[in-house]
Amino acid sequence: MVDNERVRFPKLKPAEPQGTHLLAVERQNASFKPEELSVYMHGQQYLDARESILNILQNDPILGDKSQRYYQGRDQRFDRAMLNAKRYAELIRQHNWNADEALIADMLIDEPNQFRLHRSMFMPTIANQGTEEQKDFFLRPAEKYQIIGCYAQTELGHGSNVQGLETTATYDPSTQSFILHSPTLTAAKWWIGGLGKAATHACVMARLITQGKDHGPHPFIVQVRSLEDHRPRNGVTVGDIGPKFGFNTVDNGFVMFDNYRIPHISMLAKFSQVVKATGEYVKPPNAKLSYGTMVFVRANIVMESRYVLARAATIAVRYAAVRSQFVDASNPKKLEGTSRTVETPVIDYNMVQYRLFPVIAQAYACFFTGREMYKMYNENQDRMAQGDYSFLADLHATSSGLKSLTTTISLAAIEQCRRACGGHGYSMFSGFGNFYQDYLPKVTWEGDNYILTQQTARYLGKTFRSVAANKGNQQLNTFSERYIQDYLSNSGARCPAQSAADFLNPEIILSAYRFRAAQMIETFVRKTDQENRTFNSMLVLVYQISRAHCQLFIVSNFLAAVFPGPTQKELPKEVLSVLRTMALLYALYTMEEELADFLCSQYLSSDQATMIKEQVVQLLGKVRPDAVALVDAFGLPDYLLNSALGDSKGEVYEKMTAMAEMEPLNHRAVHESYEEIIKPFVHAGKHLWKRDSNGIARL
Amino acid sequence: MVDNERVRFPKLKPAEPQGTHLLAVERQNASFKPEELSVYMHGQQYLDARESILNILQNDPILGDKSQRYYQGRDQRFDRAMLNAKRYAELIRQHNWNADEALIADMLIDEPNQFRLHRSMFMPTIANQGTEEQKDFFLRPAEKYQIIGCYAQTELGHGSNVQGLETTATYDPSTQSFILHSPTLTAAKWWIGGLGKAATHACVMARLITQGKDHGPHPFIVQVRSLEDHRPRNGVTVGDIGPKFGFNTVDNGFVMFDNYRIPHISMLAKFSQVVKATGEYVKPPNAKLSYGTMVFVRANIVMESRYVLARAATIAVRYAAVRSQFVDASNPKKLEGTSRTVETPVIDYNMVQYRLFPVIAQAYACFFTGREMYKMYNENQDRMAQGDYSFLADLHATSSGLKSLTTTISLAAIEQCRRACGGHGYSMFSGFGNFYQDYLPKVTWEGDNYILTQQTARYLGKTFRSVAANKGNQQLNTFSERYIQDYLSNSGARCPAQSAADFLNPEIILSAYRFRAAQMIETFVRKTDQENRTFNSMLVLVYQISRAHCQLFIVSNFLAAVFPGPTQKELPKEVLSVLRTMALLYALYTMEEELADFLCSQYLSSDQATMIKEQVVQLLGKVRPDAVALVDAFGLPDYLLNSALGDSKGEVYEKMTAMAEMEPLNHRAVHESYEEIIKPFVHAGKHLWKRDSNGIARL
Repeated sequence: MVDNERVRFPKLKPAEPQGTHLLAVERQNASFKPEELSVYMHGQQYLDARESILNILQNDPILGDKSQRYYQGRDQRFDRAMLNAKRYAELIRQHNWNADEALIADMLIDEPNQFRLHRSMFMPTIANQGTEEQKDFFLRPAEKYQIIGCYAQTELGHGSNVQGLETTATYDPSTQSFILHSPTLTAAKWWIGGLGKAATHACVMARLITQGKDHGPHPFIVQVRSLEDHRPRNGVTVGDIGPKFGFNTVDNGFVMFDNYRIPHISMLAKFSQVVKATGEYVKPPNAKLSYGTMVFVRANIVMESRYVLARAATIAVRYAAVRSQFVDASNPKKLEGTSRTVETPVIDYNMVQYRLFPVIAQAYACFFTGREMYKMYNENQDRMAQGDYSFLADLHATSSGLKSLTTTISLAAIEQCRRACGGHGYSMFSGFGNFYQDYLPKVTWEGDNYILTQQTARYLGKTFRSVAANKGNQQLNTFSERYIQDYLSNSGARCPAQSAADFLNPEIILSAYRFRAAQMIETFVRKTDQENRTFNSMLVLVYQISRAHCQLFIVSNFLAAVFPGPTQKELPKEVLSVLRTMALLYALYTMEEELADFLCSQYLSSDQATMIKEQVVQLLGKVRPDAVALVDAFGLPDYLLNSALGDSKGEVYEKMTAMAEMEPLNHRAVHESYEEIIKPFVHAGKHLWKRDSNGIARL
Repeated sequence: MVDNERVRFPKLKPAEPQGTHLLAVERQNASFKPEELSVYMHGQQYLDARESILNILQNDPILGDKSQRYYQGRDQRFDRAMLNAKRYAELIRQHNWNADEALIADMLIDEPNQFRLHRSMFMPTIANQGTEEQKDFFLRPAEKYQIIGCYAQTELGHGSNVQGLETTATYDPSTQSFILHSPTLTAAKWWIGGLGKAATHACVMARLITQGKDHGPHPFIVQVRSLEDHRPRNGVTVGDIGPKFGFNTVDNGFVMFDNYRIPHISMLAKFSQVVKATGEYVKPPNAKLSYGTMVFVRANIVMESRYVLARAATIAVRYAAVRSQFVDASNPKKLEGTSRTVETPVIDYNMVQYRLFPVIAQAYACFFTGREMYKMYNENQDRMAQGDYSFLADLHATSSGLKSLTTTISLAAIEQCRRACGGHGYSMFSGFGNFYQDYLPKVTWEGDNYILTQQTARYLGKTFRSVAANKGNQQLNTFSERYIQDYLSNSGARCPAQSAADFLNPEIILSAYRFRAAQMIETFVRKTDQENRTFNSMLVLVYQISRAHCQLFIVSNFLAAVFPGPTQKELPKEVLSVLRTMALLYALYTMEEELADFLCSQYLSSDQATMIKEQVVQLLGKVRPDAVALVDAFGLPDYLLNSALGDSKGEVYEKMTAMAEMEPLNHRAVHESYEEIIKPFVHAGKHLWKRDSNGIARL
């Protein structure tokens, strides 16, 4: 590699006006201080922690350098992720980060690695489902990475249907061991993060068979590789499942067992147990407790989706403020201090606003709903500790639907924002590529987004029947019960709005959402109970019910938080005002997206639909001057974004060219394939060309 | 690399029932012969050509091997694509393939390469816009790859707005040369396929400046690299723009010019010219002719989208017939010849049908509309040859909107089908990864899908005004004029359907589509002319108008082709019947998707909306037994699909495991990073573990 052959761009500036100037003006024009909103959302303590961790990471010799990520193939990225994973573990120890701090660092590093499941699934499973002896035996060494684990549930032939798993663990009392076995090819454990090359152990979900009876899937801690030399144990076939659309820094793996024996201690026994001497199966006392954990995991997903949405919006909104294209004839821009007409920043175009600003609103919506979910989770844990399980089903059903809804909209938002960046959105330097690819599996794993909605709708149908049967005499405990009762007390209601301005009234909005959701549930119950329709024939409706319920939940939380109520006092007037605009935009944009539902319910007239559309356009105009400040308030650093388009200073084109200079293909002037491929073609015609005194080729 | 360390799966079969059996049963149960439908769509001649080319490619030592594609990083794939590109050029020569045959081969090879733009843009541009002298000078050597070209229009700072390009070409009569110059960083040509490492020449769009006047962008053929040693010419900075989301086998490049001189012959002069001696600018006679070519390019895109949709559906439908998950309680399946209940193939679930079958219908819809566009293109070319330009504007507007609509739905369909494959859809072995990534730019390039709709809506607004002004006295020539006149003659009409079955009547469907599109155009015209709304404030409506117009166009073509009319006779009864189901499903599913529009227009009542939803579910059930045959009819070979999930024989899990065995990480049992990363952690705790006589680790 001859360094002086490297491509260098000439030292030129981009055309006027400069991106740095445009972004600075946007920030001057904002109606509120983003720092104040940031503190309100995150708390000063979190912001300080994030800042301090960011400083450590940015200055770290290993984790500080993300510059090669976009150029490396899987092999190189895989090796680097391994190194990063080790460094991450060292920093946690060195700085004594607690779990929250470790998560902040993980988010900023922004690269799934081979040890992530060890921390996020293997250790927590042992902690939650292991006995004290098992914790000593497995968890203590795991904490020091003396064993490295993963979580092996999914099989080649089974994902969502856990009850259909094929791997068996048959107890043999004579040797006091379980015999793990994969009876078919489809029984291979598959997709297991960390298993491909890294893990020494796996938490394997296998059908427990003892005393001749199949008790269904149970968790076993299984050593798959030697602790001496890391080779697979006899009876274990283990490896990597190959390349994926994203997540290629992770060794998603497979494992198959050929009558592989593991000791009695392997089966996690806090809940179910097998008596060592006899093989007798002892049932778990109460399975409901684990649902609480699922709610917590899903609250985390909703809170994470806030950052996913914010990240996509940050890149696209900043670039839209810098990128100028065409002259808007109805509102031509002049170059500051001159009479020269310049092109219009695309953020001024109505269609771009329509594509981007609702994403900002969705990010804020997820924040308020995530916060509410944490609150409900804590309340419910307290209740359960007192033996009160009455809130659990509602919370679980809503959290299932919310996981489905928020990950679906987040993924759509990434792609929507990417496309709104035009051609450059397709460059990896946009920061959308890896981001999209790594977020993609979220819509499938931890509950497929379609399957999950079945739980939500079934629960809502049950609730509807119970509220209807009690005819208002029941005490209404839950969110769902209350809006279903509202509907039942006036199922012929119609929306009272008479002008676009009426749709700025939270109660008018909420009534519409309540009516729509409840009426859809009523349809589902009627078809099931009176028309004998099968569940399978109504899966589209089932999906829509879950979505309608969750949208109502999100809108309710958002509006309640920013319209007259306790929150008001915590916030400066300007911040509250912009949050109200966000809440209204989220609510009305979503109504417009789901307009068919609202119109089919007959609660809304087509004139009112037109009013909503008008109001959305007006709200977009209101958001316009605050758009950049609204994404700034999330405080996502350039280190995380790793994006030329989303550069916080607006140096879009400077970064694009600097990153292009680093492309390995540009390290040499002439590509290696020239001699073999191009030269034979070109030299065959070379004699045709002459050069004149200016060096210009001529006939 | 020690070969005996490679991971090998045990010789086990997947769980019963086998995928091969399930797919065979699907094919037995189809109501029609897919070969007959295939011949109808493609013609026997095309099918024979495809078969013969497929044979050549599959057996070619270079192009026959796609096995490494999913494992290679950009550098390896880039080198390989270069080799493939050369081999492709050789095969064209060797087998004397014509342009159509070369395109079939290119589609089957399914890998964009460094020479593709040379064939698809560089040579055609010279052929269409060059003088005879220029063709001798540039095109003849290009045909033999003695010069290798690309098409350089887009700049770092300008994409859609071609008029805003910054690169200048200033004519200097004293040396009879143009001086090419990039005045700013944003003037860098960017995204230019083939320019990064391969091209010797570029067709550069630059602002022509002569005699002190700027005449806007014109095309110049510019030598950028030496024909001797391939190094960049002095005054030329050229290189690769770096990694992209897909298309990484192509060297999308940039180029900047520093007062770089090119001879007078460089400016393509069939239309505009610069007089050599004086620099006088001579205007083009008629620019309209080039619009005809754009229509042809867009007809190709619509026809291509048919295969994109079919390819996505082929993979997902076949896998859905093999993949079994859960037991459908309302219709439990037994393993053939036994009483054992087995899981239900997911293709039997209503929601899966709802996600997949409309994609099949879209593929057929695009076929019929693509065919119609070719017909209209030819008719229009004939008319223009006789000086009749009356059809051009309509055809151009419709083709703009169709490019936007069909590429948008195709891309959405790829992702929809991928997700419907559950977790395995995320594996590269699904065949969706590269496919999606390489198709992605279609929604942005050759006209951004949002910007394009502005042309369509502007034209329709103009047409509306003209038809309205003529009050039925005008002769109605075009498709658009006719449906607008229909609407104007009865703008208070309402849908007459009284039952779900009424929506199987093509006239009832078409009336609704016509009314909706025309009424939206009317709203746009009213807001513009009477309410003084700016175009910018209506861009959302503009987008919707284009979509409504194009959906009407597609539905019209599809229904016209398969309901009573001339086509009927060409087709066996069973094939015609299944095509009618497809047409109705496309039409009604799209109505359901766009229900808000139809309801807002008040043409449809909410009861009728419910009927449509019911009818869609019934049509899905009708498609069910023919789903596999319907994708088979497109005849996309396994060589193209390169997919484990879409395997034509149904050997899904066998292929998944065979492909996993080839993953480079599985070539060695222990990963290279073990010594440095894992061993220090694990060995620190090794002393804790003992092994019993069974080799089981114990405390």
